[in-house]
Amino acid sequence: MISVGIVGGTGYTGVELLRILCRHPGVELAAITSRGEAGTAVAELFPSLRGRIGLRFCDPADAGLSGCDLVFFATPNGIAMTQARELLERGVRIIDLAADFRLRDHSEWERWYGMPHACPDLLDTAVYGLPEVNRERIRAARIVANPGCYPTAVQLGFLPLLEGGHVELGSLIADAKSGVSGAGRKAELSVLLAEAADSFKAYGVSGHRHLPEIRQGLGVAAGGPVGLTFTPHLVPMIRGIHATLYARLTRSTDLQALFEARYAAEPFVDVMPPGSHPETRSVRGANICRLAVHRPGGGDVVVVLSVIDNLVKGAAGQAVQNMNIMFGLPEATGLDQVPLSP
Amino acid sequence: MISVGIVGGTGYTGVELLRILCRHPGVELAAITSRGEAGTAVAELFPSLRGRIGLRFCDPADAGLSGCDLVFFATPNGIAMTQARELLERGVRIIDLAADFRLRDHSEWERWYGMPHACPDLLDTAVYGLPEVNRERIRAARIVANPGCYPTAVQLGFLPLLEGGHVELGSLIADAKSGVSGAGRKAELSVLLAEAADSFKAYGVSGHRHLPEIRQGLGVAAGGPVGLTFTPHLVPMIRGIHATLYARLTRSTDLQALFEARYAAEPFVDVMPPGSHPETRSVRGANICRLAVHRPGGGDVVVVLSVIDNLVKGAAGQAVQNMNIMFGLPEATGLDQVPLSP
Amino acid sequence: MISVGIVGGTGYTGVELLRILCRHPGVELAAITSRGEAGTAVAELFPSLRGRIGLRFCDPADAGLSGCDLVFFATPNGIAMTQARELLERGVRIIDLAADFRLRDHSEWERWYGMPHACPDLLDTAVYGLPEVNRERIRAARIVANPGCYPTAVQLGFLPLLEGGHVELGSLIADAKSGVSGAGRKAELSVLLAEAADSFKAYGVSGHRHLPEIRQGLGVAAGGPVGLTFTPHLVPMIRGIHATLYARLTRSTDLQALFEARYAAEPFVDVMPPGSHPETRSVRGANICRLAVHRPGGGDVVVVLSVIDNLVKGAAGQAVQNMNIMFGLPEATGLDQVPLSP
Amino acid sequence: MISVGIVGGTGYTGVELLRILCRHPGVELAAITSRGEAGTAVAELFPSLRGRIGLRFCDPADAGLSGCDLVFFATPNGIAMTQARELLERGVRIIDLAADFRLRDHSEWERWYGMPHACPDLLDTAVYGLPEVNRERIRAARIVANPGCYPTAVQLGFLPLLEGGHVELGSLIADAKSGVSGAGRKAELSVLLAEAADSFKAYGVSGHRHLPEIRQGLGVAAGGPVGLTFTPHLVPMIRGIHATLYARLTRSTDLQALFEARYAAEPFVDVMPPGSHPETRSVRGANICRLAVHRPGGGDVVVVLSVIDNLVKGAAGQAVQNMNIMFGLPEATGLDQVPLSP
Repeated sequence: MISVGIVGGTGYTGVELLRILCRHPGVELAAITSRGEAGTAVAELFPSLRGRIGLRFCDPADAGLSGCDLVFFATPNGIAMTQARELLERGVRIIDLAADFRLRDHSEWERWYGMPHACPDLLDTAVYGLPEVNRERIRAARIVANPGCYPTAVQLGFLPLLEGGHVELGSLIADAKSGVSGAGRKAELSVLLAEAADSFKAYGVSGHRHLPEIRQGLGVAAGGPVGLTFTPHLVPMIRGIHATLYARLTRSTDLQALFEARYAAEPFVDVMPPGSHPETRSVRGANICRLAVHRPGGGDVVVVLSVIDNLVKGAAGQAVQNMNIMFGLPEATGLDQVPLSP
Repeated sequence: MISVGIVGGTGYTGVELLRILCRHPGVELAAITSRGEAGTAVAELFPSLRGRIGLRFCDPADAGLSGCDLVFFATPNGIAMTQARELLERGVRIIDLAADFRLRDHSEWERWYGMPHACPDLLDTAVYGLPEVNRERIRAARIVANPGCYPTAVQLGFLPLLEGGHVELGSLIADAKSGVSGAGRKAELSVLLAEAADSFKAYGVSGHRHLPEIRQGLGVAAGGPVGLTFTPHLVPMIRGIHATLYARLTRSTDLQALFEARYAAEPFVDVMPPGSHPETRSVRGANICRLAVHRPGGGDVVVVLSVIDNLVKGAAGQAVQNMNIMFGLPEATGLDQVPLSP
Repeated sequence: MISVGIVGGTGYTGVELLRILCRHPGVELAAITSRGEAGTAVAELFPSLRGRIGLRFCDPADAGLSGCDLVFFATPNGIAMTQARELLERGVRIIDLAADFRLRDHSEWERWYGMPHACPDLLDTAVYGLPEVNRERIRAARIVANPGCYPTAVQLGFLPLLEGGHVELGSLIADAKSGVSGAGRKAELSVLLAEAADSFKAYGVSGHRHLPEIRQGLGVAAGGPVGLTFTPHLVPMIRGIHATLYARLTRSTDLQALFEARYAAEPFVDVMPPGSHPETRSVRGANICRLAVHRPGGGDVVVVLSVIDNLVKGAAGQAVQNMNIMFGLPEATGLDQVPLSP
Repeated sequence: MISVGIVGGTGYTGVELLRILCRHPGVELAAITSRGEAGTAVAELFPSLRGRIGLRFCDPADAGLSGCDLVFFATPNGIAMTQARELLERGVRIIDLAADFRLRDHSEWERWYGMPHACPDLLDTAVYGLPEVNRERIRAARIVANPGCYPTAVQLGFLPLLEGGHVELGSLIADAKSGVSGAGRKAELSVLLAEAADSFKAYGVSGHRHLPEIRQGLGVAAGGPVGLTFTPHLVPMIRGIHATLYARLTRSTDLQALFEARYAAEPFVDVMPPGSHPETRSVRGANICRLAVHRPGGGDVVVVLSVIDNLVKGAAGQAVQNMNIMFGLPEATGLDQVPLSP
């Protein structure tokens, strides 16, 4: 049994980790921390977990995290980096669901996140936790930087095109749409039901923190820098990301075959039949990315549709997938949730 | 392994049965029928089941249902009653998720459902499948009439009060609210998103088909006829029923203790702490009924709040619970889904 | 032209007042105050008002409210009562959209609102602004206490029954459902889209601040105290209240005729044909209460369905209706919005 | 007074026309036809219009349309073209809200709409009713082809860039998102609340009927053919279109100034301040297109955000705007609805 601690379990990625881990046969949940809710039963704050989780939130100081095999950070950006070194020194492995270890270049990180990085020297130790790219390196990783939700959906959609050199690198467009749980469990006016329901808008068009992360990943796949326009939008729904990706083909290719071959061995990427339009609800609650690839009118523009549940394949599910890889378990252990539809 | 057939699998209760059964360790899915979709892969119609269900819909004539141990009818009202006798004669057991076998009195059935009953003599054979009331009779049942969604939520909320004779029987009120999946997967104007979203209404105030079913069940619990006003409403959400129940106390009782004692041994009924307000999302996708009992201002009116997922504890989940009981499996087998929240 | 000031215009009742008043032919908007947003253009905070409102929010100190003919308070509870006396002394009339002047009994007010009342002696001066009851007194009122949203829907539904003595007074039930804008424009977790969408719950079952207000109004109509159980619920929609009201008839009455006669002369109450189920969207954005009256199964329980837009007939629209009455304008001036449907 | 007939008033564009026209001071509503609902009061089918519209639906044969000054066709595609000639011969002017007269090339029309065109010779008579482009020709038009919803949002967003030659013409991308009312008031499974809520998807990626209409309009603006990729998506909301438009700049331009200058005199196009992200709710129920223009990272990609209410500026509102122009009324007559927000 893997002894697991969770730091910061009161947000959406935290409660989603609990939903998945409470049925995981290889995990013992040792502690879940929250300064603000220390002493409160987890199931009191999240009644959906009544009868499933007996733990109470505890103060980080009392959590005994250094005795765990693995600690998940489901915290705001900037927390994991201040606690990582001490845990690593005690032999604890780390999966950070926030952004602290996602960018290789700490100065770029500091520019986008607006604070100094607490441990730039550890960035080389961290492995970017997209199993479809880094599976072997994740096995041995001491720190896994769990990818962001948009970056997961966008990278999985673009990878086959970039790795094979099938498209122009300078004019990629990712028009991405997310449910409001992507904004986290925070009391903010803009994501009130009365503000966000029955409406639709773009945000962060001039620059979003996931842009450098996506650009870094696509650059690795392409073997060189890419030009990317990334436009996030807010959808009046709870969960789900839909990325609509545009690129210009540089040569004729059987796109369907390309995508199917690239992901043939991947347990959590589903290439749909030609002509498909994946819906976000078809992955609701499950650790799956579904893709469809189109070439409208037979022209030179390729359109890829990529959907994930932002809280699962875009956060907690992918983190558990990474944990399974790190600890030598079958990769799908505890990740057999069937999407909830309707 | 229980060999299972499903008749009529293209509606919401059908696809929900599939979601649950595809992970059930004791079930082999033998056939799923649909006249209209015969030949279509289940996963093509329901992409959420891609990779989970390999079956295709087949014509009822080709389904080999008489070789099954159990057949679920996830059909419109009036179908199961025409096919039940033949299956029973072949030794197949039946769970009907529609209304054909729910009412003891066939003339009342015919009045509410507007057609003659095809096999009134079988009504005595059928067992009303509310495990919290009829568990022992369900074990041996050849036909189980799976309760309606509203009747499940309302009966579980009223039972402790009626069985103990704690309330006036003549003035019960059930003000119930349902998500739109309760209307089924039918192309009807009134449940279009553009018609039903961002709005709320009552319907069927002058009389709803679930009224006689609820009245029958409450009458059994009370040991005599009850007077009930039942008002259903349509909520702009997909899944979930919330029943708000009102009764007048005839004596002083520790209501919290009464409810906790009544359901202490029930795996799928959760009596919440005093002062609670259960949300439908706290049971989304799971086979649970959560209850809270209130006595506003310490007066003589008791208010019970009862929530279920109409497609799970109100339909497919309860059907699987009944199957487990009928076939001697642990009652919770295959029913460990954690509610999806948020 | 009536010179109008609005105190506290950044909440939902404030912006709704602006939506209505910006097209009102008899009003000149003199000032709108907000400490937090002083200097910001109204249309910057509320882009829906771009091109309609040129004003900026100003600090209360600079608003020149004492030069207005009328001041609307669209503030949290407890603000209007501290500023009312000074304005009245300057001859300014007041409509308070909050609760400060709604209860006649200041000690009951203090119990429910948890603070001392700043001007209990003014409570006798205030007129409860439900035009269908108090039209004549509103004409001359110096302070109008604009009714709460739930109280408007519930009282208009019960009034014909109580005024005529048609029902038992001791066992009234109001099962009421509200969209989330009723909670105000406040950053609170419970009304986030990710928390409140696709779910349904009751709240405040043990006691809600609108209970004493409703009880007071019904008591006046009945000519004596009433026993009322009031259960509010949260609906995953933006606007709208649906009250489902239950009472026990004490004698046989033509209920449809009773309701039609009671409201025959009322411009903003619509008694629908027998058998109707009003939807909240049928009043979305408009100053209307639609009612339907049912007697299920011909028994002795009467069920009244009452819908309003909580921000219009339940707040800002009713406030403008009161203003029109106070200043001798045709009552419907500026209130001809057609409901937005779908 | 303009005597107006409406053919086919039971869909969403029909009821929206009624919502607008019932308050229009220059219009007399002579008849509204529906074969299926002949004899039914309009307000019975659409309770939101109770007290506003006294008319009943009538059979087209009894409608006396040839006595009207203007007939709106709010019918499915393929109806207006069969009735236009006769009305024109009687001197009746026509605004078709469907697609029959939108494409100049009848063979392209026939390819996309799958039927022969009934009156290709009238296509030269018809004027494409986008006032921001064709105002002068609309004045004298006998038939106005009211633009589609997507085409309105996309063209208004691209026009300033194309008319001035500021962008590459071969690589335009329009990623567009629509609420479900765009699918019409039709009983179809895919737009049930239980299917479309809490989900997001693309559709018609391989080709949508609005593509040739948009391409035609952009081609006129650019003075030559354009290459356009158009991807429509379905948003779980009732009303609203958000088009996110991408183009590659060919030279440096002050984009904000360009857009502001282009639309300075337009009453129904609102260019928002730099850095804005228009929300669809900011135009809900109103005849406005709001635009924002971005140049992310100062690069050579321009991103335009364009929002309309698909039923107003995208259908009925624009039709009334065209009517006002055709009959010499001030263009904004009857179009002063303030957006409903929240």
